[in-house]
Amino acid sequence: MPHPLDSFFAPESIALIGASRDLEKIPGRLLSMLRKNEYPGRIYPINPNYGDIDGLKCYKTIAEVGAPIDLAIIIIPARAVIGALEECAAVGVKNAVIISSGFAEEGGDSAAMQDRIVAIARRTGMRISGPNAEGFMSEVQKVAATFSPTVDVKPGHVPLVATKKRIAIVAQSGGIGFAIKHRAKALGVAVSYCVSAGNESDLGAGEFLDCMVQDASTDVILLFIEGIRDVDKFLAAAKRAAEMRKPVIVTKVGRSGAGQRAAASHTASMAGWSAAYDAVFAKYGFIVSNDLDEAVTIAAVLASNPLPKGNRVAVLTVSGGGGIWGADTVSMQGLQVPALSQGIQAQIKQWMPSYGAAGNPVDVTAQGVSSGGLQKSIELFDASNEVDATLVVLSLSSDTRMWFKEAELKPVIAKQNKPVVFYSYTLPSDFARRELAKSGVVVLSGLTHAGVAMRRLLDYSRFKLAPEAEVASLPARDLSAHLKAPTLSEADSKALLRDAGIAPPDEVLVTERDALDAAIARVGFPLVMKIQSPDIAHKSEVGGVRVGITTKGEAFTAYRDLLDNAQKHRPKALIQGVLVSPMARKGVEIIIGTLLDATFGPMVMVGLGGVTTELFRDVIYRPAPVSTMEAETMLGELKAAPLLRGFRGAPKADVAALSKLISEVSVLAARLRAKVSEIELNPVLVHPEGQGVTIVDALVVPRT
Amino acid sequence: MPHPLDSFFAPESIALIGASRDLEKIPGRLLSMLRKNEYPGRIYPINPNYGDIDGLKCYKTIAEVGAPIDLAIIIIPARAVIGALEECAAVGVKNAVIISSGFAEEGGDSAAMQDRIVAIARRTGMRISGPNAEGFMSEVQKVAATFSPTVDVKPGHVPLVATKKRIAIVAQSGGIGFAIKHRAKALGVAVSYCVSAGNESDLGAGEFLDCMVQDASTDVILLFIEGIRDVDKFLAAAKRAAEMRKPVIVTKVGRSGAGQRAAASHTASMAGWSAAYDAVFAKYGFIVSNDLDEAVTIAAVLASNPLPKGNRVAVLTVSGGGGIWGADTVSMQGLQVPALSQGIQAQIKQWMPSYGAAGNPVDVTAQGVSSGGLQKSIELFDASNEVDATLVVLSLSSDTRMWFKEAELKPVIAKQNKPVVFYSYTLPSDFARRELAKSGVVVLSGLTHAGVAMRRLLDYSRFKLAPEAEVASLPARDLSAHLKAPTLSEADSKALLRDAGIAPPDEVLVTERDALDAAIARVGFPLVMKIQSPDIAHKSEVGGVRVGITTKGEAFTAYRDLLDNAQKHRPKALIQGVLVSPMARKGVEIIIGTLLDATFGPMVMVGLGGVTTELFRDVIYRPAPVSTMEAETMLGELKAAPLLRGFRGAPKADVAALSKLISEVSVLAARLRAKVSEIELNPVLVHPEGQGVTIVDALVVPRT
Repeated sequence: MPHPLDSFFAPESIALIGASRDLEKIPGRLLSMLRKNEYPGRIYPINPNYGDIDGLKCYKTIAEVGAPIDLAIIIIPARAVIGALEECAAVGVKNAVIISSGFAEEGGDSAAMQDRIVAIARRTGMRISGPNAEGFMSEVQKVAATFSPTVDVKPGHVPLVATKKRIAIVAQSGGIGFAIKHRAKALGVAVSYCVSAGNESDLGAGEFLDCMVQDASTDVILLFIEGIRDVDKFLAAAKRAAEMRKPVIVTKVGRSGAGQRAAASHTASMAGWSAAYDAVFAKYGFIVSNDLDEAVTIAAVLASNPLPKGNRVAVLTVSGGGGIWGADTVSMQGLQVPALSQGIQAQIKQWMPSYGAAGNPVDVTAQGVSSGGLQKSIELFDASNEVDATLVVLSLSSDTRMWFKEAELKPVIAKQNKPVVFYSYTLPSDFARRELAKSGVVVLSGLTHAGVAMRRLLDYSRFKLAPEAEVASLPARDLSAHLKAPTLSEADSKALLRDAGIAPPDEVLVTERDALDAAIARVGFPLVMKIQSPDIAHKSEVGGVRVGITTKGEAFTAYRDLLDNAQKHRPKALIQGVLVSPMARKGVEIIIGTLLDATFGPMVMVGLGGVTTELFRDVIYRPAPVSTMEAETMLGELKAAPLLRGFRGAPKADVAALSKLISEVSVLAARLRAKVSEIELNPVLVHPEGQGVTIVDALVVPRT
Repeated sequence: MPHPLDSFFAPESIALIGASRDLEKIPGRLLSMLRKNEYPGRIYPINPNYGDIDGLKCYKTIAEVGAPIDLAIIIIPARAVIGALEECAAVGVKNAVIISSGFAEEGGDSAAMQDRIVAIARRTGMRISGPNAEGFMSEVQKVAATFSPTVDVKPGHVPLVATKKRIAIVAQSGGIGFAIKHRAKALGVAVSYCVSAGNESDLGAGEFLDCMVQDASTDVILLFIEGIRDVDKFLAAAKRAAEMRKPVIVTKVGRSGAGQRAAASHTASMAGWSAAYDAVFAKYGFIVSNDLDEAVTIAAVLASNPLPKGNRVAVLTVSGGGGIWGADTVSMQGLQVPALSQGIQAQIKQWMPSYGAAGNPVDVTAQGVSSGGLQKSIELFDASNEVDATLVVLSLSSDTRMWFKEAELKPVIAKQNKPVVFYSYTLPSDFARRELAKSGVVVLSGLTHAGVAMRRLLDYSRFKLAPEAEVASLPARDLSAHLKAPTLSEADSKALLRDAGIAPPDEVLVTERDALDAAIARVGFPLVMKIQSPDIAHKSEVGGVRVGITTKGEAFTAYRDLLDNAQKHRPKALIQGVLVSPMARKGVEIIIGTLLDATFGPMVMVGLGGVTTELFRDVIYRPAPVSTMEAETMLGELKAAPLLRGFRGAPKADVAALSKLISEVSVLAARLRAKVSEIELNPVLVHPEGQGVTIVDALVVPRT
C-alpha cells in the first residue's frame, strides 16, 4: 500500500544542500555515509564552492540540477535555511530533512525562523523533517540520510542478522534512536528504518509512527519520545497499530522533574504529564520500557518468536545455578515454571547423566549437551502441551565450541510453535552469536530483560483493543446552566450530575429551616447533613458535616450548628443551604476523577479510596471516554483490585455498576471538555454485587 | 593478617589427583589452566597411567611425591574419592578441592559418601572444598584451580583493567560465579578471587565469605547463594564485613517455588525462605541484587569510585535525549537532579554552543566536547558543593575517536572526591573501554543498572550497623509454666506476655458470671468481651467477640451469648471464660509477629495492620532480637511509614513505644526459641506520641 511518505523514505534522487569534502565535519560525513551505504539513487551535491565532490558533479544551486528531486538534505547555517527551502519549493522538491540546528531549541528569533519553515511546508506541500534532526536511515532502500556514526560501514564487517522480521525505530532524539539501532543490530535484529524527528516543524513522531505501522517491511516498532506534538496523527497511528496487531515498544522520557525541565528546552517540546502518556499507551497496548537494553531485548524476542499462548515456561539449562536463577526470574514476572509430568521427565532423563535434573528447571548438564540433550529438549518442549515457552540458560562465551548443530536446530526454530529464548550467563562471543544467527536465534545477555520480554509477549498476546465508549448511554443534554458560576458546591455539582443522567443518591437541599421536616420525611433516618457553599471546598474543616443523625431533634440542632459554624469560619461565604442525604450503606471506598491533560485532553482516573490511593499511588488513568468494558479493565489493573473481588470473605462488590459509573463520568468529561476541567466523585461506595454504588460526595470544577 | 585458609588460596604446591593429557576433558583442562595462568608454585600430577604429562613428572600416588602439599585438586570418579582423601590425609595434605560429582546431589548411597568426606575433614583437620565444585581462581597468586573455560588464557589477549580496587566472588554455583568474573573483567574490574563452593562438605560459602572479608587485597565482595549451610560462620562474616565497611553485593536465588525445588536438588541445599535471607542482608547492609549485570555494575561502580556524601546528581551529556533519560533514571531511584546555580551555569556555558543546556542535565553537545567542555564540567562538578555525584551519558562506540585526553582526565579521576559514573548509550567499543581504563574509568553499558548502582552507593554510605538488642531490658524469668499446653488462648498468651514484662492492657478473665461485676468495675465502660479457649483460634468466626459494651445489662447479655455461641459452634472446646478488656483508644493498626526460620532461627516481623499488610505485602523482617533503634529502622522501611508520621494532618504516632515493644517481643522470641515457634500481636494500636500502644489481641504458639 503506497504511503504519502514513500518518496521521503525511498527517494529516487537526493540533493545534499551544503555538501562538503571535509569528512571530519557533518556535511562531509553525510555524503560519505550515503555512498558507503550504497544508496542506489541519484545524488546531487549542492555547494557553490565546489565543482565536484568525491567524483560527483557539484551544483551551485538546487535550480541548476534540472532534474526531479525527491529529497533535499539540508546542512547549512540556520540563517540560510529558509532561502534554501524556498529554492527547493520553487523547483518542486518533494521532501526535505533539515539537519541544521539553531531554531526553536534556542528560542527568540531562532524560534521564529522555525515558524517560517512550518509556513513553507503548509503553503507548498513540501514535507519537511527537522530542523535540528539527525536524519534517518532506511535499511530497506539503503538510504543513509544521516550523519550518525552508527551507520558508518566498517571495512570487512559482515552484519549479524538473526531475525527475518524487522524492527523500525522512531525517535525524537537522534542520538538515542541510532543507539537503539546500534544495539539491536549487535544482537542480530534486522532493522527496516531508523528515523529521528528533531524539532518536528512539519513531520512529527506521530506521522512517522503511522508510516511504520503501515510499512509492510516493518514487524515491530520501537518508539522513543520526549513529548508528542502531532497528537491526532499519533493517536490514529496508535489505534491502527493496535488494530493491525503490530507491536509498538515505547520509551517515554521526561518523566522526572529534571527530565521534564530538560525536555522542554531540548527539542522545545512540552514533555507533558507522564501518567497521561502511560494511559494512552495502555489503551493501545503499547509495550512500555524505560530501559534501552530492555526495550531492545523485547524487540529482539518479538522479532524472533511467535507470541506465547499461555504463561507456562520451561527453563532449560546446563548450569544448576543458572537454571534456578532463570526460574526465579520468569517467576518474578508472574510466569509459571510448572513441574513437568513423569512422562516428559522420563524422556528428558534419557539425554542426561544421573546428576542432571528433569523437573523444571531442566538441567541437562554439560555432559547432557554432548549427547544432544539440550537440542532434543528444545524440540520436546516446542511440541509439548505442558509449557508455552522455553527459556534456555547457558554459557556461550566460547570462540570455538558450539552446543548446537545448525542442521538440527535451524529446522526446529524455522517451524517453532512457541517462543524459545536463549540467554547466556557468560558474555556471549561473536562466534556464538553468528553461529546461532544461522538458525534464526538471537542470543540475549541480560536475564532480567529476557524475563521481562517473555512477560511482555504474553501481555501483548492477551491485549484486546477496548470497544469505543457507549457515548449514547448518557443522554445529550444542555448542561450550560449549571456551569455559569466559577465554582460549584457539592449540591451544584450533584445537580449537574443528576441532570446529566448520572444519578447521585436521593438528597434534598434545605434552604430554610421550615423545609427540614419535609426533607427528613423524604430521606429517612439515619441521615447526613452537610453545609453547601461554592466558597467552601473542605466542609469538614469548618465543622460543616454531621453524620449518623437519627432523630428530629438532632437534625434541627445540626441545621443550626452547621449554619453557625459556616458563619463563624467563613463569614463571607455564599451559603446555599444544608444538604440532607441518607447515610450511605457500607461499601468499598472508591475515588473517580477526571482532568484535562495538556497533550491528550480529558482523562479519567479511578483508585481505591482512603489512604491507600495516596500512600501506594494505586490509581489507573485512561483517556476519556472509556467504555464500560475498558472501565472494568482499569479496575482490574488496580493493585487493590482484590478488595472488589471479595477479599477475606467479604462479598464481591458491584463492579458492573461501578464500571458503568466510570464510563458515564468519562463520557461526561469528554463531552464537557470545553467547559469543565475536573470532576471528582470521592468517595463512591461500591455495595455488594447487584446493590449498586453510592456517590457520597462530588465536585465539578468549571474550566477557567 | 594471616587467615586459616591462606594455604588453600595461596598454596605453594598443588597435587592434581586424576591429572590427564586429554585437554578436551576436565582433568586435562585443570592442569592446562594452572599452567597457562602461570601458577608459580610446584605442581604434582598424580595418575598411575602416565610417567609424565606436559613436561611434568607424573606420580603414581600422592605418597610418592615425598614433599609437602598445600592443596590437592581431586578429579577422579566419585567412588575413588574417599580413598584418595585418606591418602592425602596420611601424608599431611593441608587442603583439598573435590571437583568430582556424584555425591549429595544424587542422594542415596552417593550422599552417604559425602558424609564420609565430612568425617575425614573433622578427623584430620584437612580443609575440604566440594565435592561437585568448579574450584577457584586466585588472580592475586595466579592459582587457577578450576576447569572453568572463563579462566582460559587467549593468545594475544591483554586483560582490560580499569580499577585499582579488586572484587572477590564467592558463589555456590561455579557456572554463575565464573560468569560474574567473566563479565566483571570485561568491564575492566580487577578481581582478587573467584571461588565456587559446590556441595560444601566442609568449607562453605560462609567461611569463604569470611576469608574475603578479611583479605586485604579484596575491596568489594560479590556473593551468589542458593542456601547457606554454615550459618554461624556466615553471620560472623557478615557482621565483620559491616564493621569493616567492606561492601558485599549478594544475589540469593531459589526465591520462587520452582527455583527452590531446583535448588534443593542442585547443590543439595535447602534454599530456605527468602524473606529471612533478605532480613539478614538488611541487618548487615548487604547490597541485594537479583540481576547479574546489575550486580556486576554495582561492583564496578564501587571498585572505581568513592562513596557519595549526598543524593544530588549532575547529569552530564552530549545528547539531549540521553541527558533526559539519565535524569529520569536517577530520579526514579530517588536521587535528586537539582537545577544548578546561575554561577555554575555561567561557567559551563563558556564551554558549549548556544544550543547546549547548562541547567542539569547539562548538555554540552558534540561541539562542546571538542572545546573540552565535557572534561571541564567533570572537574567542575567534582569540586562543586552543588552536587554529590556525576553521571556522564555519552556515546563511546567509536573505534578511533576519544572524547577525553588521558593526560587531563587521569589526574582528575585519581583524586576524585565524588562518584563519576560513565555510561555509553551506544555499545561501547573495546577501544573506548581501554582508552578510558588508562584513567581508571569503567564504561557502563546499562543505564538503569548505573542508576541503581548510584542509589546503592548512597544507601551503603548511609548504612549503620544497628546496636545489639537491649536484651537486659526484659527481665529474665522462667516462663515454662505458661508453655505446658500445646495451644494457648488469647488470655494464656497475654498472661505469658505480662509475666515476661511485656504489658498488655489491664484486662480481667471472668470465669464465672458472679465475677462480671467486679471485672466491669475494674475495667470500666466502654468495654470489649471475648470468649477464651485454646481450642478457638478465630473468635469472631464463632460469634465470640462483643465490642462497644456500655451498660451492665449489655455486659451480662453478652456474657451469656458468648458462652452459648461457643457451645453451639465448638461444643468440644475447653472454655476458659470471657476476657473483659477496655475498648482501645484509636490508633494506627500494626501487626507484630515472630517466627522460627529453618536457616536463621527467630525472626521478628512488623507491618501495618488491616488489609494493607496483606494486599501490598508491606511487612519488614529482621533476625531477632533487634534493638529499639533497629526496630525504628524497620518501621521506617515500611511503605506505609507515613501513616506513623502524621499522615494527612493526623497526629504523629508513638513510634518510640512501638519500637520498644517490637524490640521486647523480639528479645522474648529469641529467648524462647527452643519452646515458642510464633508470637503474634495483631492488632497493636499505636496511639499519638507519648500515649503508648495497646496490644489488642495476642497469640503465642508453643513449639511442637
